[in-house]
Amino acid sequence: MGCIQSFRQCCDRPKNTNVRISLPAVCFVWQIAMIILFGIFIRYNEESDAHWIEHKTSKNISSNIENDYYFRYPSFQDVHVMIFVGFGFLMTFLKRYSFGAVGFNFLIAGFGLQWALLMQGWFHSLDPMDGKIKIGVESMINADFCVASCLIAYGAVLGKVSPVQLMVMTLFGVTLYAVEEYIILSLIHARDAGGSMVIHTFGAYYGLSISWMLYRPNLDQSKHRIGSVYHSDVFAMIGTLFLWMFWPSFNSAISDHGDGQHRAAINTYLSLAATVLTALAISSLSQKTGKLDMVHIQNATLAGGVAVGTAAEFMLMPYGSLIVGFCCGIISTLGYIYITPFMEKYLKIHDTCGIHNLHAMPGVIGGIVGAITAAAASEDVYGKEGLMNTFDFTGEWKEMVPTRQGGHQAAGLCVALCFGIGGGIIVGCILRLPIWGDAPDNSCFDDEIYWELPEDEENNPPTVEYNNHMRNKAVTIKFLSGTVRADARA
Amino acid sequence: MGCIQSFRQCCDRPKNTNVRISLPAVCFVWQIAMIILFGIFIRYNEESDAHWIEHKTSKNISSNIENDYYFRYPSFQDVHVMIFVGFGFLMTFLKRYSFGAVGFNFLIAGFGLQWALLMQGWFHSLDPMDGKIKIGVESMINADFCVASCLIAYGAVLGKVSPVQLMVMTLFGVTLYAVEEYIILSLIHARDAGGSMVIHTFGAYYGLSISWMLYRPNLDQSKHRIGSVYHSDVFAMIGTLFLWMFWPSFNSAISDHGDGQHRAAINTYLSLAATVLTALAISSLSQKTGKLDMVHIQNATLAGGVAVGTAAEFMLMPYGSLIVGFCCGIISTLGYIYITPFMEKYLKIHDTCGIHNLHAMPGVIGGIVGAITAAAASEDVYGKEGLMNTFDFTGEWKEMVPTRQGGHQAAGLCVALCFGIGGGIIVGCILRLPIWGDAPDNSCFDDEIYWELPEDEENNPPTVEYNNHMRNKAVTIKFLSGTVRADARA
Amino acid sequence: MGCIQSFRQCCDRPKNTNVRISLPAVCFVWQIAMIILFGIFIRYNEESDAHWIEHKTSKNISSNIENDYYFRYPSFQDVHVMIFVGFGFLMTFLKRYSFGAVGFNFLIAGFGLQWALLMQGWFHSLDPMDGKIKIGVESMINADFCVASCLIAYGAVLGKVSPVQLMVMTLFGVTLYAVEEYIILSLIHARDAGGSMVIHTFGAYYGLSISWMLYRPNLDQSKHRIGSVYHSDVFAMIGTLFLWMFWPSFNSAISDHGDGQHRAAINTYLSLAATVLTALAISSLSQKTGKLDMVHIQNATLAGGVAVGTAAEFMLMPYGSLIVGFCCGIISTLGYIYITPFMEKYLKIHDTCGIHNLHAMPGVIGGIVGAITAAAASEDVYGKEGLMNTFDFTGEWKEMVPTRQGGHQAAGLCVALCFGIGGGIIVGCILRLPIWGDAPDNSCFDDEIYWELPEDEENNPPTVEYNNHMRNKAVTIKFLSGTVRADARA
Repeated sequence: MGCIQSFRQCCDRPKNTNVRISLPAVCFVWQIAMIILFGIFIRYNEESDAHWIEHKTSKNISSNIENDYYFRYPSFQDVHVMIFVGFGFLMTFLKRYSFGAVGFNFLIAGFGLQWALLMQGWFHSLDPMDGKIKIGVESMINADFCVASCLIAYGAVLGKVSPVQLMVMTLFGVTLYAVEEYIILSLIHARDAGGSMVIHTFGAYYGLSISWMLYRPNLDQSKHRIGSVYHSDVFAMIGTLFLWMFWPSFNSAISDHGDGQHRAAINTYLSLAATVLTALAISSLSQKTGKLDMVHIQNATLAGGVAVGTAAEFMLMPYGSLIVGFCCGIISTLGYIYITPFMEKYLKIHDTCGIHNLHAMPGVIGGIVGAITAAAASEDVYGKEGLMNTFDFTGEWKEMVPTRQGGHQAAGLCVALCFGIGGGIIVGCILRLPIWGDAPDNSCFDDEIYWELPEDEENNPPTVEYNNHMRNKAVTIKFLSGTVRADARA
Repeated sequence: MGCIQSFRQCCDRPKNTNVRISLPAVCFVWQIAMIILFGIFIRYNEESDAHWIEHKTSKNISSNIENDYYFRYPSFQDVHVMIFVGFGFLMTFLKRYSFGAVGFNFLIAGFGLQWALLMQGWFHSLDPMDGKIKIGVESMINADFCVASCLIAYGAVLGKVSPVQLMVMTLFGVTLYAVEEYIILSLIHARDAGGSMVIHTFGAYYGLSISWMLYRPNLDQSKHRIGSVYHSDVFAMIGTLFLWMFWPSFNSAISDHGDGQHRAAINTYLSLAATVLTALAISSLSQKTGKLDMVHIQNATLAGGVAVGTAAEFMLMPYGSLIVGFCCGIISTLGYIYITPFMEKYLKIHDTCGIHNLHAMPGVIGGIVGAITAAAASEDVYGKEGLMNTFDFTGEWKEMVPTRQGGHQAAGLCVALCFGIGGGIIVGCILRLPIWGDAPDNSCFDDEIYWELPEDEENNPPTVEYNNHMRNKAVTIKFLSGTVRADARA
Repeated sequence: MGCIQSFRQCCDRPKNTNVRISLPAVCFVWQIAMIILFGIFIRYNEESDAHWIEHKTSKNISSNIENDYYFRYPSFQDVHVMIFVGFGFLMTFLKRYSFGAVGFNFLIAGFGLQWALLMQGWFHSLDPMDGKIKIGVESMINADFCVASCLIAYGAVLGKVSPVQLMVMTLFGVTLYAVEEYIILSLIHARDAGGSMVIHTFGAYYGLSISWMLYRPNLDQSKHRIGSVYHSDVFAMIGTLFLWMFWPSFNSAISDHGDGQHRAAINTYLSLAATVLTALAISSLSQKTGKLDMVHIQNATLAGGVAVGTAAEFMLMPYGSLIVGFCCGIISTLGYIYITPFMEKYLKIHDTCGIHNLHAMPGVIGGIVGAITAAAASEDVYGKEGLMNTFDFTGEWKEMVPTRQGGHQAAGLCVALCFGIGGGIIVGCILRLPIWGDAPDNSCFDDEIYWELPEDEENNPPTVEYNNHMRNKAVTIKFLSGTVRADARA
């Protein structure tokens, strides 16, 4: 800890928030790198290549509707909305950081999905014949998934970092994600349809570790901006609802064709419904007069979707989904009430959006539920073929049995945790370097720093000056954007 | 009427809006009941069960794409957006009730869909072999439909009831809905693809009757809050547009595979387009200077979708759809101008969102249009197989002919009306009991009552105090959230 | 130019913004005309007609899932969202023109799509057997596409025209669109999946020409309203994001089944991602302190989708898409910084939304990229069948070769340009007539003119009066909607 402390001091030089060189430089260099790497590595897969028509004949595929595009594209678009509108607007709740929330979310996602296509391609879909990565609709969904983990991490540091830091965080986040995903899904052979472990647990602990490394002891100076105004809370509900509604598509997007996708959607639908009720109940209970808190409605209502992610494609049973949602609504809301303040005070982790309650805890629960459900699977419930199909007991995993699969699921969860925490600490150290243009402690959560703001009377409370000279009295009401002046003679 | 009057007086005790015990209690008890009932009754259907792969082989289904999921899931997601974002944001127009609009909408829908799966399951999809309800994507759509009727009812009482009352209203609303739906669709064998009768007519009269029973003679005290501000009207347009755009999916979601869904989408698309023009025309005509009224744009433009609901899957013909939309745009807008004030003044029915104009009248029109279109159906237009297919003249209804079907449609409309009005009156009586925590007459339409509100300068007009003592003069501008003070010496 | 000048003077009579007669008249007459024309001409096509079940048997179609509805409906709904929410909200950025942006967008689209179904039907899908137009899901997509070109044109004149002018503009715009589309796609046999030429180039130059003809030298009087406020910029981001996210559906909606749709979605997805990075980079570079400008984020990030439109279904290759997006992000942002002010100052073209940067330039680039990609196509890359399939080298175009196809693509671009500019000038002349109810120069960009506005404290900066009489001093803060008064005695 002493070493961390001294590193911290070394980094605490006066802040310069000018990103005029660094931000364009990073964007251009990385985008050019993407073009070169895409040129070398990335090609269309069989289903999106113009040779599809020949491929179809050779494989005896009867109709174009068998193209994977028609199985997955509607889900892809729903996931896409979650990434850009869902995550983006969920973070607009701060009174003066809506531009940063939705704008930097856009930037992170735009870069992240390109890098994810490459990283995931190298691990998962490298064609051994020609050394190229072959992409299709499933690659796009996976790229969006990967980006989701970085956006979750952004939630922890919202308002406290510069766009350049976010780009660096995304570069490393995507890289780490691709590696842990490969280890969990391919090497360990854990199943994780909705990414409770791979996306949420990893992303949340990655973000929290970074936030811990970037801890600002004097953040109190920006305290008055950590809050919402009436309309910003309504904007945030746009994000909440699009996440909530499309979560069944998220959890089912890359499940098996047929019953797998169907079941994942049903389980998620039910789990989320139960979460709404318990989150509201706890929110109401926690206030003296039973009033509801928008923070809980905006966030805790989503916990059920996270927690049912891994088990969504399993035979969790409808009541099982409700139980998962029931518990997570309670735990997540209690997290906002008790754990977030605790973490800030004692663990020195400031978590702007409360991702610990929305993604970290429910993600871990999701991993555990997945492990238990997998271990409890039986031919009775799944059928012989159904069991093989659902858990992919084929090829080298032909001899796998459900109980062992449960163990592998648990191992997967541990890997996600390690990558999240370990990776976050290392990346957090890098981000402490005083070269990234982040805001000083008294200018956090303020769009003023990185955005040209419109002149905007309504958001600046007027200040009043009163000069009473002998003859002339003037009442001046100053708005930041101008001054209305009225003179009067005595 | 005298009896109602005395009952009213008995109920008019001072209001206590503290829901800290009742709201969490209702949420927890009902959610636990749901879990138990789901555990006993609800299972996956053949298409979402892991046995699908065996089922597929046994039924000679050639491809996973034949799973009903791929026929209906995109429509389901559109309907889902209508329920949560569409209805939720449509009601955000009030200047200080946006949290309640979108938040309680969320609560109602989250609870309602679970209860709807059970109620509808008992009536429609109980497997006689094992006594279980088998659910799939169509069940989720139907549950969302059922919830829609309760959300329509919420529109009539928006801002005047407590969340606990809304939960009770939803419990009974879903129950009544399932029964009337069973009578109309199964016993009477009426067709109602888009639910003009089953959803809209029922839901609207249910809500209006409740609003009548809950009439507040002194609502004038909250009059200044029944209105919009500039931004709240823009928020409401989000709701309007998502309802408008996805209505073709709503009306086609549970139609027959193939031409049924295709035709329902086209008819709805056309009807809605015509409504936009006539609603705007009447809105402009109704003002001295031809200005448009946002209330009409937000609501009356949707009437065409309601009115084409029943007939959407019939051979209504494109021009028929336009005519329906044309008329409903006029009627609905005139309703906002003349009927809503009339109802409030003379019938003692206060209808916050004007659901009588958007759902009740167009719903009845839709039922009538459906009856006429069904009665006029002929083998000429539909083809022999097409007629049987569209009207489901199979099994015990093999001998049915179009003219008689028209009669059955009309009978269905009457059932929907009776259930709506009758059910609403009874539930309204229950909701008058002074135990539900609803707001006093001077605090309606105010989020303050049930929500922790952010400190929010911009929405509180400043008050000015001026103290001119001999030497010191201070102008103080007070905001509810703080005071800006400036002193000056003479 | 002299003739234009004198025509201008003749038109510059005092403005009367009362549209109480003209707007309803136009809406009613045109809607009734639509009903009559639909009655005469429009019928369901084979796939949406009740005879589908017989057609299916006769054509040996094995399953309902082969109905075109299931190939295209999800894309249709995404396009529908782009038209109504995307375009509508993108234009809400002005501080006092959000109602007009989203409301008139709604009106234009509602009328335009009906007229487009007729116009496009006459040219493309007239059944020679019975002289009827047969519509299905593809017709709805094409109608939405056609409307898009009119909404693009609206962007240039936003805030400066009356709703009646917009209706006239749409009537002619749709007509011109249908003709140029027929020439480009059918006569010239150019391919244009995403409409870079047909939709964007045409629409943008149509709007710019109209804006040129309607040039207002004294628009400075409304200058203070050409700007955003904080929340209106967030609303505009809703439009931006829905356009951005669903653009892959836009470009793939009417591509070939199978690999065509699949590839178009991938190319667009990649192109748009690259655009985000370069648009942000240039935006940051253009400001002294590296701050980002919301105008660029809202608009320039979309340019990549426009520019990849024509070539989206070709084998552009993933890196090719990135290059297109990369260049367009730069060009479009530079356009906002340098070209828009230049056009206003020297060319007398005022372009409210900067459609020249978002649609015109990227559209032309898209046409050129399409021509080059087509000319460079080879059997090597596409396969023999793939080449025929992608470029539709069938029927009378059997002998076509890629290099000649490239020439045809270029010819198509020229046609789009001619129709846009020529049509715009003619329609602009018509719109200058002083009978359309447009606003005077000092009332542009103000919803006050055509909308009933809510009383709305927060948007009216207070004015202060101070009266210091001998004994009584009063500070009065006046809001337009009321006065807060405080008196004090000396």
